Amino acid sequence: MFQKYGRRKFLRRSTMAGVGFSLMNAKAFATEKKSRVRIGLIAVGGRGQVHLTEMLKRADVEVVAMADPDRMMMGKAQKIAGAYNKQLPAEYPNGDFDYRNLLQRDDIDAVIISSPWGWHLRHAVDAMNAGKIVGLEVGCALTLDDCWEFVNTYERTGTPIMILENVCYRRDIMAVQNMVRLGMFGELLHVQGGYQHDMRARKFNDGVHPDTDGVEFGEKTSGTPKWRTQYSIDRNGDLYPTHGLGPVAGMLYINRGNLLTSLSSVATKARGLHRYIIHHPMGGVNHPNAQIKFKLGDIVTTQIQTANEETILLTHDTSSPRPYNLGFRVQGVNGIWQEYGAGEFSDGSIFFEDRSPDHTWESPEKYIRAYDHPAWKDLGREVEKEGHGGMDYFVDDAFIECIKRNVPFPLDVYDLATWYAITPISEMSVREGGRLQTIPDFTRGKWRNRRPD
Amino acid sequence: MFQKYGRRKFLRRSTMAGVGFSLMNAKAFATEKKSRVRIGLIAVGGRGQVHLTEMLKRADVEVVAMADPDRMMMGKAQKIAGAYNKQLPAEYPNGDFDYRNLLQRDDIDAVIISSPWGWHLRHAVDAMNAGKIVGLEVGCALTLDDCWEFVNTYERTGTPIMILENVCYRRDIMAVQNMVRLGMFGELLHVQGGYQHDMRARKFNDGVHPDTDGVEFGEKTSGTPKWRTQYSIDRNGDLYPTHGLGPVAGMLYINRGNLLTSLSSVATKARGLHRYIIHHPMGGVNHPNAQIKFKLGDIVTTQIQTANEETILLTHDTSSPRPYNLGFRVQGVNGIWQEYGAGEFSDGSIFFEDRSPDHTWESPEKYIRAYDHPAWKDLGREVEKEGHGGMDYFVDDAFIECIKRNVPFPLDVYDLATWYAITPISEMSVREGGRLQTIPDFTRGKWRNRRPD
Repeated sequence: MFQKYGRRKFLRRSTMAGVGFSLMNAKAFATEKKSRVRIGLIAVGGRGQVHLTEMLKRADVEVVAMADPDRMMMGKAQKIAGAYNKQLPAEYPNGDFDYRNLLQRDDIDAVIISSPWGWHLRHAVDAMNAGKIVGLEVGCALTLDDCWEFVNTYERTGTPIMILENVCYRRDIMAVQNMVRLGMFGELLHVQGGYQHDMRARKFNDGVHPDTDGVEFGEKTSGTPKWRTQYSIDRNGDLYPTHGLGPVAGMLYINRGNLLTSLSSVATKARGLHRYIIHHPMGGVNHPNAQIKFKLGDIVTTQIQTANEETILLTHDTSSPRPYNLGFRVQGVNGIWQEYGAGEFSDGSIFFEDRSPDHTWESPEKYIRAYDHPAWKDLGREVEKEGHGGMDYFVDDAFIECIKRNVPFPLDVYDLATWYAITPISEMSVREGGRLQTIPDFTRGKWRNRRPD
Repeated sequence: MFQKYGRRKFLRRSTMAGVGFSLMNAKAFATEKKSRVRIGLIAVGGRGQVHLTEMLKRADVEVVAMADPDRMMMGKAQKIAGAYNKQLPAEYPNGDFDYRNLLQRDDIDAVIISSPWGWHLRHAVDAMNAGKIVGLEVGCALTLDDCWEFVNTYERTGTPIMILENVCYRRDIMAVQNMVRLGMFGELLHVQGGYQHDMRARKFNDGVHPDTDGVEFGEKTSGTPKWRTQYSIDRNGDLYPTHGLGPVAGMLYINRGNLLTSLSSVATKARGLHRYIIHHPMGGVNHPNAQIKFKLGDIVTTQIQTANEETILLTHDTSSPRPYNLGFRVQGVNGIWQEYGAGEFSDGSIFFEDRSPDHTWESPEKYIRAYDHPAWKDLGREVEKEGHGGMDYFVDDAFIECIKRNVPFPLDVYDLATWYAITPISEMSVREGGRLQTIPDFTRGKWRNRRPD
């Protein structure tokens, strides 16, 4: 966890060899200030229901209320809640702004926001203004000004906000971050990540039900296609930067002694979504959606420079047929790790100059097991059947444990603003033919003195 | 082969399913105009000796003469020639310009140039002016003007020149190119390649002998460190673009209906070479070379855009500990191939929407075997123990067979100029903090009508 307090620092030094850096040391190193957290959920669609489930399973959380204008989703969420022997959450289902009534309750400590991207700013700002601690699902910013508004609202209200980037808590990522902190890669040089995920079937459905097959999207339907697909028509840039950037930004200490300084983005032609529609059995060349011009290039590549002279490569690739792979690479002066799968430890290559056979890749598996994060070692078997192989448990756990201990979140408003900003800045770059763009310093200079521990 | 003549076109159509595109159809589709090619070699260091060996083994080639001011290398080359039951080549060892005497001979059809990068332009221009067909080893341009001088000299003299990019002839590359031409990937979107090769031990030696261990380089020594290492001190950009770019440029029909239009390059800090020197048992922090400031960033990343709206990503990574991998990726609307090794067929991932199991990577091996280039199928077993696993045989074979048939080279002066230009343009971009740069059209508009077949 990125935070400052003496005891942890002392302990960390003494356990350095075994633990290294951790995103989740709150439990070990700070005293609980409260034993229960009272949670409200804003938006309980597919993603909100995952957080709801995580919260319901915890003895230290009370789910007090839920807001969502989609009555079908609210019904599903209540059904989930009903399976637990707990007080059913209060409902705020009356239109887009009923969440404001939820925020006025005085029996809620924190909210988890899982709304469509276009609502993130409004939901989070209203919550911070209401003094409710915020856990915000990942997404992207609509404009650069939005990023500043997250920061300004946080600085004005002092209400903590955490960006719930679950991939930061993926088991292999945490083990590699551990190795980075222990110096095994040496000084870092170059990292890569991305969102390389064939989302075509998730951008469309039958026009009525979520999670169905089809070529429909937009207001008339429900689930992700209702709101997410329109971004592929309107925008051309890296629309979903946080899964790729979050994990490697942590390894590079971004906003804590380091900073993203500039980027340039290029986009390929847009073919995949149109092709999907015309080849789909429920679509075809005569289907009205075959006329739609999608603006989002099928593959958007972004190269980022940092204040400490590393480079970061991000890929956004969601409209092409391809197996899932976020494409992480971490390279330093002493070693390199690359992964090609979906988190399987062996699905990649690793090499350390001082450990590996000369010029020979090794399987990352033994290293990931040896440097497994203690929290994963303890709980991995229990949680890996949960959301996204256990990542969701750990990101939500970090959120709740930090609140209980009143310590800073490991992923904070400056991370949120910086990561979200990649979207509008990459759009600007693509629009200008790949021109170099400056990335603002959302910490306003504080990055120089902020430290992860 | 990129060339125009009716018979091949006709035949290609009829054999499309079996053969697809080929870099080496000269043998099948054109009549020999001469049965022997008389060759001169300019520079016979390590790389020149590989070409010498390839030429000596051929019954259709006579090695007439060799020029090199390095008498040790000339001795080694003569020793190689002496092992064949052939007339020994004449020697031109008297200083840097004795090659001009070689070029004045009237019993040489073509020269193969394997000199240090800084000599490529002068050697090639003098040869073209002398009417000697040129095969030029790969490297990079010192300036953008140099690239134009290659083109202008070719256009003025009409002397053919081929860039001897051997990776274009790697077995998996040719099979994948075959698959691309057969449409298996669909319309291409994004490709990657690079030079990711730990060259540290090759940038230094003991200061006397080539191929020794040490931390010395420069004039006093011999072999690659004599000339190549200085570029890492003087230049910061992609210094060796052709191995990564050549293969994928062919797949994208660059200069034949398509064009590179712009690039931006970013470089990491430079750490690897200094670190190598101070940690080497023959080096150390007090070794004089520990004072040297290397300008070349350890990892240089270049993103390129094309006229047909694909993107290309190139990586230059030669100063860090890492197993060899050129990092190819070929992605289209129907499929994707990535490779992680050194040409082993199974060391990668492939996926075709219309052939592979849903969302599941396959090993590329069965596809590479099924779409193996006929030339590799015929000769693979014989040549794979030769230079660079057989690639050197095939690139030199293409060079000789085209000369015998008097047909255009598959990789010509426009490819040479375009690929070499990446170096000075990427340097400009890095120097300007990653700013977008225009890539000139070296075909002066002819790319629109040039076709590969």
